Amino acid sequence: MTELLLTGGRVLRPDLTVERADVLVSQDSGEIVAVDEPGALDGDDELDAESGLVIPGLVNAHTHVAMTMLRGLADDKPLDAWLREDVWPVEAELTPEDIRAGAELGLVEMIRSGTTALSDMYFEVEEIAEAVDQAGMRAVLGFTAVTVGKDEEGARADLQESLDVAKRLDGAADGRIKTTFQPHSLTTVGEGYLREFVPEAFDAGLSMHFHANETRDEVTPILDERGVRPLAYAEEVGLLDGDAYVAHGVHVDESEIDLLAETDTGVAHCPASNMKLASGMAPVQDLLDAGVTVGIGTDGAASNNDLDMFDEMRDAAMLGKLAADDASAVDAGTVVEMATANGADLLGFDSGRIEAGANADLAVIDLDAPHLTPAHDLVSHLAYAVRGSDVRHTVCDGEVLMRDRTVEVFDEAAVRERAAERAAALVERAED
Amino acid sequence: MTELLLTGGRVLRPDLTVERADVLVSQDSGEIVAVDEPGALDGDDELDAESGLVIPGLVNAHTHVAMTMLRGLADDKPLDAWLREDVWPVEAELTPEDIRAGAELGLVEMIRSGTTALSDMYFEVEEIAEAVDQAGMRAVLGFTAVTVGKDEEGARADLQESLDVAKRLDGAADGRIKTTFQPHSLTTVGEGYLREFVPEAFDAGLSMHFHANETRDEVTPILDERGVRPLAYAEEVGLLDGDAYVAHGVHVDESEIDLLAETDTGVAHCPASNMKLASGMAPVQDLLDAGVTVGIGTDGAASNNDLDMFDEMRDAAMLGKLAADDASAVDAGTVVEMATANGADLLGFDSGRIEAGANADLAVIDLDAPHLTPAHDLVSHLAYAVRGSDVRHTVCDGEVLMRDRTVEVFDEAAVRERAAERAAALVERAED
Ligand SMILES: [Zn+2]
Ligand SMILES: [Zn+2]
Repeated sequence: MTELLLTGGRVLRPDLTVERADVLVSQDSGEIVAVDEPGALDGDDELDAESGLVIPGLVNAHTHVAMTMLRGLADDKPLDAWLREDVWPVEAELTPEDIRAGAELGLVEMIRSGTTALSDMYFEVEEIAEAVDQAGMRAVLGFTAVTVGKDEEGARADLQESLDVAKRLDGAADGRIKTTFQPHSLTTVGEGYLREFVPEAFDAGLSMHFHANETRDEVTPILDERGVRPLAYAEEVGLLDGDAYVAHGVHVDESEIDLLAETDTGVAHCPASNMKLASGMAPVQDLLDAGVTVGIGTDGAASNNDLDMFDEMRDAAMLGKLAADDASAVDAGTVVEMATANGADLLGFDSGRIEAGANADLAVIDLDAPHLTPAHDLVSHLAYAVRGSDVRHTVCDGEVLMRDRTVEVFDEAAVRERAAERAAALVERAED
Repeated sequence: MTELLLTGGRVLRPDLTVERADVLVSQDSGEIVAVDEPGALDGDDELDAESGLVIPGLVNAHTHVAMTMLRGLADDKPLDAWLREDVWPVEAELTPEDIRAGAELGLVEMIRSGTTALSDMYFEVEEIAEAVDQAGMRAVLGFTAVTVGKDEEGARADLQESLDVAKRLDGAADGRIKTTFQPHSLTTVGEGYLREFVPEAFDAGLSMHFHANETRDEVTPILDERGVRPLAYAEEVGLLDGDAYVAHGVHVDESEIDLLAETDTGVAHCPASNMKLASGMAPVQDLLDAGVTVGIGTDGAASNNDLDMFDEMRDAAMLGKLAADDASAVDAGTVVEMATANGADLLGFDSGRIEAGANADLAVIDLDAPHLTPAHDLVSHLAYAVRGSDVRHTVCDGEVLMRDRTVEVFDEAAVRERAAERAAALVERAED
């Protein structure tokens, strides 16, 4: 039995109070064993949290981690043109090795910025699963099915693959990997396919994750064609039952907010992506007020352009205020909860809070920095002033993924080099 | 004659191209001597820019640097309540020593994130000037006059102090300090005082810097009382002539944008502050299209909550797109220019571009990081992915302010400690 003691720091408790405490975690069970006053606990090994703040590992509730390969490749374009002209042509050239390299790069970036769990949508999911396994992180993975522009056979193959991957990989990496069935969005997967495959996914016990109401252009065609809002249509085809969560939820009206609340469907809010693609402002405070579980995601690096959840918390707080036209909306404590407990709730992991019995997914923030001085309010700092580079250690499932800013689960320099080389070659292929 | 050579890096040129080059700067003249191909130049001393990107030092076009003392003290409140209930009561307790401590803390934070020049509005300006002198940075400083809530004598004393400070400190720190006359805003300084003192300021050759059109609540009373928009009123009282620049300019209509362009009045755009206080979205692309010079400012740390101009560039690009409802608005290159050449233009320094003859104000970004991999587009990285902690060296006026992330102009730990102690005591006093 190996137990690790995080010692000498302050600890963010589930009620968002901060106290001086040590945290004991079990590397066997992967759980938090105890949180007690300084000096009261003993471990086999120690992790120095002196002048640090121990927080739950952050949960990136929506991303496409391998898209780090496209970081900075095409900016300053609206979603539709960006996808058609830039993203899809390059993605068509991605090999399994590219996706592995991009996933490793993204996971290293996440570990370095205190993220311990992610929800990912992509393809070549086995590669991503292996990278997550090596990273020691938790993830919800899936194969993202698209049927537009495909013939019957190709379309059915895509949805079948989404089902098969979800069944095959659920519980992988000693349970650190879960899966979802992933129709890409309500406008990129045909109705017939949804009606056929969604019930099968539910019968298999899978949860659902899909893009919804991201841009106005996604809402209008559904409204025009069917006379109902997109999420009403999503409910009709059975997508809102169970443990579903949608990405974005920017253009949702009151009836859709109610529907999300009634069906207990969560939202992965992606503020930076929504701003950068000029998609709009999600009514986050309204969603929260209605009782919807809202997590925070970075979306892919190509529309962000980083995977730093501290940026994302700050963006969520700031954009949430603008959307509500109210500076008191989406406050500091709220975004911290969104990025921890709420995100873990969406993904279905017992993480996101520091108390005995919860998963030992943690990050230690170094508070000895000019931009974190003075320390009037550490929850405010987490929301508005901490950046990913302030993370000293990252722990997931009781294992140390980064110690004193050295990533222990990957050879970071090799990961960077491999990704850089493959990205350069990828662009050359796509240009041919 | 001492010359410093930045060697082995890539260099961002004024046309936003990036090339491999060495940069030679003179510590005597404080200017860039030459930019030439790798190995072509010799210096007395070297600064390693290997695997780095040399950029112009960033210009923070609007801040209240000593407000670091209030960082995180009160968040999630609208501007008016935040000022009256939280900021002003604490500011009333600030001693000159507190302001010195807060200014030093903020300047250290700026140096660590690649900022070499700032435009500041506050009081106890001598303290701030001394801190800037020690920091080796450039600054435009001023005493901010407020007349509301003051009797005739107090009001006049405030404006006189703004004039006197500006005259006294202009050209201090070997010319690295300039000054502005600073009526706080169009609603917090009475019309009579403006009509009396503004001409005097112009006669003294001073430029003007004031808050304008930050919130809707600042526009409505002027419109109601005078029947003209705030900037038309500002022109009437003579504030828009000369080298004036306003902070914020969020709620400006077309006529005001034209007026800013016609009078060559600049705007210091503060995206994070405008979001955090739910003030609104400045029409940055419209301002730029009209030919207005727009720089970027962090505003004070209490409404941000950091002074990292890389955050601010990203926020400016993202918010600019939302405001324009167009993902191609306020693109990566634009925000880089806003934070460098445009900002320097507002402040009146010959900085913000890397070419022979310009001020030797530079920062070197370390590109060997997962979140900056791959390197498809370094200008995109500057706008969207670089963070302040990626700055390796900071140089101003040819002098090295930070080398390999060690600040050379202050004892950083002592600055942090002093500020933390004084901030704690300040809050205790304010609560009494
Ligand atoms: Zn997405
Ligand atoms: Zn201000």
